[in-house]
Amino acid sequence: MKTRNRRQKTEDRRPRTEDRKADTQDTKPRVRLGLSRVGITNLRTLIQTTWRGHTFRFTPEVEVTIDLTSERKGVHMSRLIEAITQTLEDEAQKPGRSIEEIERRILERLLERHQYRRGDVRMTTDLIVFKRTPVSLKKTMESHRVVVTVTKEGARFTKRLKVTVLGNTVCPHSMLTAKKPHIQRAIGELEVETAYDTYVSLEDMIKCVEKSFSAEVYTLLKTEDEKQVVKNMFENPKFVEDVVRDMLRNAKRTLPKCRIRAKAISQESIHRHDVIAEGTITT
Amino acid sequence: MKTRNRRQKTEDRRPRTEDRKADTQDTKPRVRLGLSRVGITNLRTLIQTTWRGHTFRFTPEVEVTIDLTSERKGVHMSRLIEAITQTLEDEAQKPGRSIEEIERRILERLLERHQYRRGDVRMTTDLIVFKRTPVSLKKTMESHRVVVTVTKEGARFTKRLKVTVLGNTVCPHSMLTAKKPHIQRAIGELEVETAYDTYVSLEDMIKCVEKSFSAEVYTLLKTEDEKQVVKNMFENPKFVEDVVRDMLRNAKRTLPKCRIRAKAISQESIHRHDVIAEGTITT
Amino acid sequence: MKTRNRRQKTEDRRPRTEDRKADTQDTKPRVRLGLSRVGITNLRTLIQTTWRGHTFRFTPEVEVTIDLTSERKGVHMSRLIEAITQTLEDEAQKPGRSIEEIERRILERLLERHQYRRGDVRMTTDLIVFKRTPVSLKKTMESHRVVVTVTKEGARFTKRLKVTVLGNTVCPHSMLTAKKPHIQRAIGELEVETAYDTYVSLEDMIKCVEKSFSAEVYTLLKTEDEKQVVKNMFENPKFVEDVVRDMLRNAKRTLPKCRIRAKAISQESIHRHDVIAEGTITT
Amino acid sequence: MKTRNRRQKTEDRRPRTEDRKADTQDTKPRVRLGLSRVGITNLRTLIQTTWRGHTFRFTPEVEVTIDLTSERKGVHMSRLIEAITQTLEDEAQKPGRSIEEIERRILERLLERHQYRRGDVRMTTDLIVFKRTPVSLKKTMESHRVVVTVTKEGARFTKRLKVTVLGNTVCPHSMLTAKKPHIQRAIGELEVETAYDTYVSLEDMIKCVEKSFSAEVYTLLKTEDEKQVVKNMFENPKFVEDVVRDMLRNAKRTLPKCRIRAKAISQESIHRHDVIAEGTITT
Repeated sequence: MKTRNRRQKTEDRRPRTEDRKADTQDTKPRVRLGLSRVGITNLRTLIQTTWRGHTFRFTPEVEVTIDLTSERKGVHMSRLIEAITQTLEDEAQKPGRSIEEIERRILERLLERHQYRRGDVRMTTDLIVFKRTPVSLKKTMESHRVVVTVTKEGARFTKRLKVTVLGNTVCPHSMLTAKKPHIQRAIGELEVETAYDTYVSLEDMIKCVEKSFSAEVYTLLKTEDEKQVVKNMFENPKFVEDVVRDMLRNAKRTLPKCRIRAKAISQESIHRHDVIAEGTITT
Repeated sequence: MKTRNRRQKTEDRRPRTEDRKADTQDTKPRVRLGLSRVGITNLRTLIQTTWRGHTFRFTPEVEVTIDLTSERKGVHMSRLIEAITQTLEDEAQKPGRSIEEIERRILERLLERHQYRRGDVRMTTDLIVFKRTPVSLKKTMESHRVVVTVTKEGARFTKRLKVTVLGNTVCPHSMLTAKKPHIQRAIGELEVETAYDTYVSLEDMIKCVEKSFSAEVYTLLKTEDEKQVVKNMFENPKFVEDVVRDMLRNAKRTLPKCRIRAKAISQESIHRHDVIAEGTITT
Repeated sequence: MKTRNRRQKTEDRRPRTEDRKADTQDTKPRVRLGLSRVGITNLRTLIQTTWRGHTFRFTPEVEVTIDLTSERKGVHMSRLIEAITQTLEDEAQKPGRSIEEIERRILERLLERHQYRRGDVRMTTDLIVFKRTPVSLKKTMESHRVVVTVTKEGARFTKRLKVTVLGNTVCPHSMLTAKKPHIQRAIGELEVETAYDTYVSLEDMIKCVEKSFSAEVYTLLKTEDEKQVVKNMFENPKFVEDVVRDMLRNAKRTLPKCRIRAKAISQESIHRHDVIAEGTITT
Repeated sequence: MKTRNRRQKTEDRRPRTEDRKADTQDTKPRVRLGLSRVGITNLRTLIQTTWRGHTFRFTPEVEVTIDLTSERKGVHMSRLIEAITQTLEDEAQKPGRSIEEIERRILERLLERHQYRRGDVRMTTDLIVFKRTPVSLKKTMESHRVVVTVTKEGARFTKRLKVTVLGNTVCPHSMLTAKKPHIQRAIGELEVETAYDTYVSLEDMIKCVEKSFSAEVYTLLKTEDEKQVVKNMFENPKFVEDVVRDMLRNAKRTLPKCRIRAKAISQESIHRHDVIAEGTITT
């Protein structure tokens, strides 16, 4: 098997300072059970990507996990770290085009150092998007939480992309009955799962969410912009249920074939609790 | 269908102040998609249970969600709240024996007020367990995070119970090579999924986790107790992988038939990041 | 000095199992600096209070700290824990009337076991308050985060009480210019500092905050209640600055003499960021 | 007064689209109380600094607050945002040398747009520091949380710098009595307050904290490195009290004159709760 051969060679290359015989990780565990995910989490590092001539830098939280057979006591955690650090050193010479490309390289590097059948690399970071305010057209920077995960299962790579975007809901029921709605901040989450090679842009995903709220929100708003945002709100009253359905529909229309999960949480202004809605479709 | 008949009657009993015609929730949504989970979350309330003559009080965080067909715009959120508050009022007269019993009653109450096919009630709270310290035998109170979820799907009730318990790991590799291990706090999570009627004790689940660490931990430790705990640590070096395997084995041995998920996170004392392991079995 | 005498006796009573000579804590530290706060934190326990014939149970997060002179290496942490557990055992016989009474007893108990000049006990918990909805007059339970701290400095006891209460803000500027305001959830924090013997009710503090928002919020709201809450909102547009000023004024009017700090955070529905205001007065 | 004149001119330059007469913020508040801090918080943006020829990029969380007199109802929040965005646009041409330099510019920009006597800009971000592992000398990236605050009070600028650094404690008491210590991760916080012009390096502050733990920690550790770290641990048993005293002493020795606050939290491996110590000195 190709994977095994590749590993074989790497084993030989491993530094002599790590004496195989002494490695507790390679002994048999007392309880013979395989584990699905073993690795490191909450690691913060610095990565850079280059896309259309621009360099982007992120300091994501990273999680790397692999499966473990019932015949091995433990994972060599330092090899997971080395797969990350050496991939990042390569980036200094030849930066990846995207977070998922760097994650794929980490998984490939790791396979040269450690046996596994299924592995995951996940990075969570903030993505800054530049926008113009709706009326005064001033430049504004908007920040969104993104999570990018690449999974290698046997020879197959898949990916999951998730964006968390802020917006709002305007209650259609109180709008209808009293013309006076309650309004509140809402959080939209859109996650897609697809083949590694399918191109899905995080920016497109963010737009799918933004367009599903009663109104888009902005960091900077001059008085005339604020009036427009509030006007949009009153013209688009929506339950969280509507936000989720619109996220699913927007994602279906604009993104390539994938499995889509959408969730919205409304931080109710008339209640202490939150309201949620969730739905999934496969396109 | 029984469910529907039951609902029919309830509809008639609904207070007249809520005019059916004005209810935006009951109109057709613009985007015809069914949603899997719609409801309220992060609600804090007060519940009490009575078990073996003792009354227990909790102030859990509550989440209640139901599915929604593609033909209805929204869920009547106030009926979800009423299902909770009226169940809790009943408790004053006749307290449930467990959190899951109260959750089941909420789901049943809710069905009298709102149509759904699948519904979930989840409560997250702290469970206090009384213990004796290992040598001085002093009384000590230990607190553990528990999550109890009851699901109704059609006529069938199932439940998920999860406990989060603190302990520690002592590195077996550094113990072996240098007699000097690094030691750290670790977090164990054990979750079981089973039929509603299968009796699973949260206290038994907590014990399964506690016994899987290098040593059990205590809120109060006199010098002689502390010596014992540290002695236990040095005699039981464990990777997180070992902790997870022991949690699975302990759960398999002591709990009734169920699906079991175990996870351990080690807050490494020699690293900035954490180490994790996860596994699942069905017994 | 009375305190010292009292301590003297306690020292003699200390169990023999803890050998004074072996206690590293009592040696001189290498760096001779006194410390202001040393102790335990994030401890979860179970306490009960009895007030007007009712028993209340809480599982607060507890922090206990004392100062440490430059001549002692460390604090005997287990004595802090014992001061807590033994005070709580007393409660089984004779429950305190309030959280602060229990905290005072912990500080007194602790002085019998450990020398200190300044000590603090802080408990953070959820307080459930019963209310009626504004129109349908249904019973509803509302939960608020409270923090109660008692400080002993020499012979003097003082206390700090803090409540965190949810509500909302309705923008007066957009209300004025367009009749269409943006509305959002807001968080109000009110903290008072006063002598231990001054009676301040947490419930009164909560009311001071609730009345400062554009409208009070409720866990349960039937349609007619919701209309009233939204009506209140539109009739009381407020900036966070207004909310803070009203909290300070309400506290000044209804609470006894004390130092008051008020803070409001508005989770803007038109922005990704939050808006805050803070102010203090001494009455 | 210079400040007022400067403001005067700016007022005239303000865009006409914002009609002074309509500005609710400039009316008198109903309750005449001045507020100490009013502004925006939890804003995420992108900043870059240039230092010794290198460009650093951060996406900090930003808080900007100013005081408000009893004669003005509210702060013009959009001007706070504009002070940030326009300072950041300048950076594209002429990047600041440090986070505090950018914060000072924001405060100066803001004074051209909004009257205040006291203003604060605070940024919270992750700082990546490159290190070599102790024995194998491999390159490793370490991430630390930093908070940088610049305050303008009248004409005077001051700053506060805070670093949060991970390490560990090894119990000296159990080490002494049983040669078997309990060990755990610990968190060190060091904060200094000084004049704006006093140069304090965040990297030096991080070193002060790292050297105060039982051992420094690393993201990457090969077996031989890990042995060295564990050896360091066993040779340097420390209570959190010792960690705080060493942080204060290290800061006193290596940093310029300032007020220093140090705090350590130990995530006990034998307890469910944490242990803390805090101290302050002025050098």
